[in-house]
Amino acid sequence: MTSPLIDQLIESLCALPGIGPKSAQRITFDLLAKKGQPKGLKLAEILTKTITRITNCTLCQNYTESLPCWLCQNSKRNTSMICVVETPADLLAIEQSNAYSGLYFVLNGHLSPLDGIGPQEIGIPILLNRLKTETIHELILATNLTMEGKATAGYIANQLTPFNIKCTRIAHGVPMGGELEYLDSGTLTHAFHSRITVEK
Amino acid sequence: MTSPLIDQLIESLCALPGIGPKSAQRITFDLLAKKGQPKGLKLAEILTKTITRITNCTLCQNYTESLPCWLCQNSKRNTSMICVVETPADLLAIEQSNAYSGLYFVLNGHLSPLDGIGPQEIGIPILLNRLKTETIHELILATNLTMEGKATAGYIANQLTPFNIKCTRIAHGVPMGGELEYLDSGTLTHAFHSRITVEK
Repeated sequence: MTSPLIDQLIESLCALPGIGPKSAQRITFDLLAKKGQPKGLKLAEILTKTITRITNCTLCQNYTESLPCWLCQNSKRNTSMICVVETPADLLAIEQSNAYSGLYFVLNGHLSPLDGIGPQEIGIPILLNRLKTETIHELILATNLTMEGKATAGYIANQLTPFNIKCTRIAHGVPMGGELEYLDSGTLTHAFHSRITVEK
Repeated sequence: MTSPLIDQLIESLCALPGIGPKSAQRITFDLLAKKGQPKGLKLAEILTKTITRITNCTLCQNYTESLPCWLCQNSKRNTSMICVVETPADLLAIEQSNAYSGLYFVLNGHLSPLDGIGPQEIGIPILLNRLKTETIHELILATNLTMEGKATAGYIANQLTPFNIKCTRIAHGVPMGGELEYLDSGTLTHAFHSRITVEK
């Protein structure tokens, strides 16, 4: 329909999550306009640089360009706690909430035997090795409340029996500002099962 | 908050139109995952290639990588008509509608004296030169129905007096499937002013 290069650019942008053909077209014309060109070239440069330089931290498996990563080498973090999350995006969400100041362990996935993803693939041996060599008092399981996330949390909890480490799971229930009327029944059921005693 | 490179990538993506911080974060993590890396590197490559190679067609000012552009050198187009549009995106919208098979002239903007954009900047001399040298029977003005778009159309129409060329403006009014109840009063006023006689 238009120039082959522009077509290819629109197609490549369409492959990004959450970007449809109309958005891709809008972004393309924005980047081709004189004002947008430096922005586009900078994006291409930083994209290549990030993808080629980013690796997984040998300690926590989070994305990093330096080893160990900025979190593992941060002396202000509480080094007696490790929070286990499924993805770097989950880690970022927790960091943005300022709710936690300990260390992390990123699984970069969850157990999924049918897809050939076992404990080895998500780095459980690395996590267990850290528990052996570091002084960890608490392991917080923050995997998702999906079948796979629950199975992964269960598997990790089982592996902790030889260690004298407190194992916790973040609370799941009604979110802040959430209205019961609009909540899914799974969350509501969980909220009832996990109810806590109110101090009188 | 996270690695400097990842931060820069999120920031660069945020600068694209229609992409907010959350979408930028989602795209970043998608491209950093092993599956997404080839997609990201390809996007960076095609982005650089397109921005560095794309230029404006010397005939119609549309974006092109070859001179003259794919539209100007297409022998199937009706070469007796030129449609004037403000942007390459407008041209693409018209092409996608299959409503027109003539040639185009892309202004890449509109007259805006306060911003220092005069007839020279939007290529009016190039357009007038084409009208002199080519056999054009009709010039269709398809600039937007904004103050600037209307002023630009008016200016071009005025320049046509020395030529024996039919000058038309695309119709503006109630869109297909548009409900009067939800239309803005400007469009409605225009639709009443431009009403056409119904054949009995």
